[in-house]
Amino acid sequence: MSTLSESQRQTLLQPLLSSGWSMVDNRDAITKKYQFSDFNAAFGFMTRVALKADKMNHHPEWSNVYNRVEVTLSTHDCGGLSRNDVDLAVFCDSL
Amino acid sequence: MSTLSESQRQTLLQPLLSSGWSMVDNRDAITKKYQFSDFNAAFGFMTRVALKADKMNHHPEWSNVYNRVEVTLSTHDCGGLSRNDVDLAVFCDSL
Repeated sequence: MSTLSESQRQTLLQPLLSSGWSMVDNRDAITKKYQFSDFNAAFGFMTRVALKADKMNHHPEWSNVYNRVEVTLSTHDCGGLSRNDVDLAVFCDSL
Repeated sequence: MSTLSESQRQTLLQPLLSSGWSMVDNRDAITKKYQFSDFNAAFGFMTRVALKADKMNHHPEWSNVYNRVEVTLSTHDCGGLSRNDVDLAVFCDSL
């Protein structure tokens, strides 16, 4: 797994940055805040992402306070954003 | 739900502070970092806590990075630590 090329950043990352994801300061990572109706919905989202993430063996950094979930994605193995982060971000948005 | 009395802090809170929980700076809240064997174990813990928390209608502030989970407990309604925080902390430790 390697970091995204400049071309991939244009074609794959840019659409995410236009749909609520943003770059993390001083890191090659993206983050997004989701808000749900209540804790049940927020943790339901987390559970669906957790199953996907564990299957991908690619895990988010995330936090939850009641109905809010903040997700940060980056790839430890390559020290930055990889295709896995794009795929997991797209999955999060699909839920 | 009211904040813990001084007497409750001695009898209920002190044992938690002696077993890995610590006070959060500038807040009447407690926090603890748990470490598990892998993401499956960490998210399994979170799922068990989530079911309990939603039943109590008392939810943690928490974050997860791979096999690590950081839990912070405080009670919004009373602006500080309540009996619910003690009960949820004890439950977390029991898992």
